[in-house]
Amino acid sequence: MKEIKAFVKPFKVNDILNQLLLAGFPNITVSMAEGTGHFNSEESSISTHFSITDSKVAKIEIVCDEKDVQKIIEIISLKGRTGNPGDGIICVSEIEKVYKVKTGKENGED
Amino acid sequence: MKEIKAFVKPFKVNDILNQLLLAGFPNITVSMAEGTGHFNSEESSISTHFSITDSKVAKIEIVCDEKDVQKIIEIISLKGRTGNPGDGIICVSEIEKVYKVKTGKENGED
Amino acid sequence: MKEIKAFVKPFKVNDILNQLLLAGFPNITVSMAEGTGHFNSEESSISTHFSITDSKVAKIEIVCDEKDVQKIIEIISLKGRTGNPGDGIICVSEIEKVYKVKTGKENGED
Repeated sequence: MKEIKAFVKPFKVNDILNQLLLAGFPNITVSMAEGTGHFNSEESSISTHFSITDSKVAKIEIVCDEKDVQKIIEIISLKGRTGNPGDGIICVSEIEKVYKVKTGKENGED
Repeated sequence: MKEIKAFVKPFKVNDILNQLLLAGFPNITVSMAEGTGHFNSEESSISTHFSITDSKVAKIEIVCDEKDVQKIIEIISLKGRTGNPGDGIICVSEIEKVYKVKTGKENGED
Repeated sequence: MKEIKAFVKPFKVNDILNQLLLAGFPNITVSMAEGTGHFNSEESSISTHFSITDSKVAKIEIVCDEKDVQKIIEIISLKGRTGNPGDGIICVSEIEKVYKVKTGKENGED
């Protein structure tokens, strides 16, 4: 299995998730973080947590089959871009094993 | 070393952490995220951040020795399950190196 | 590419990020989580989310070239330490591929 982790602009999250759901990827997790990438950009604002960060970043996490990686990257990239610097990145990494909490068994075993 | 990352129901976190502490795993990090997995479920509610998400998800992160992986998965699965769909998943992946902030050295070197 | 994920004390984040920016690493993401590591320590306080956690933890995430790993670990360790237990850990893991949201292409291709 693969883990796809995307750091994107928060106002793009609804479009990205909507398209991912339509494409048949229902299990997506999103959380908010703060970034330093846009320092000095027009949209910068002082963080409530850390004085050194200045942009809100949404982190999308998806665990998927290898065969779905390209499709998911395509959707996140297409729906997440504004064309300006700071649109974010998408990281793909290896997950060794995935277990279901419900059964305690590896995904696919039950 | 291995990283265990579990996405579970928030109301199960205290039970899971309690059992992990009892079993001798003291270094656990938890954060809140939002998921799309339960869309249309009875417990769904509109997120404050994203209109498309509808369930709170707790993310538990533990960095551990390979020999402890099975025990930790067992505890998270046993204490995290409700028996209903959406109980979540547990992912295991490889961590190449772990350093202590206190010393700057690799874990085990000091 | 590598992913560096550090769990550090929140009041150290500004110093760490400042030094990382000065050293030429502008793309850093930070988020807040809660930990169980300091249970029974003097600075412990009951979490608002989970009764079993008792310390705020900041999570710093950086995706970088392999050649920058040591420098980044050095900075996080140097700026993040207090000398007391619970200063945190820094994990390094492999990222298979990184794509830019702006182009949909792999980092370095455009």
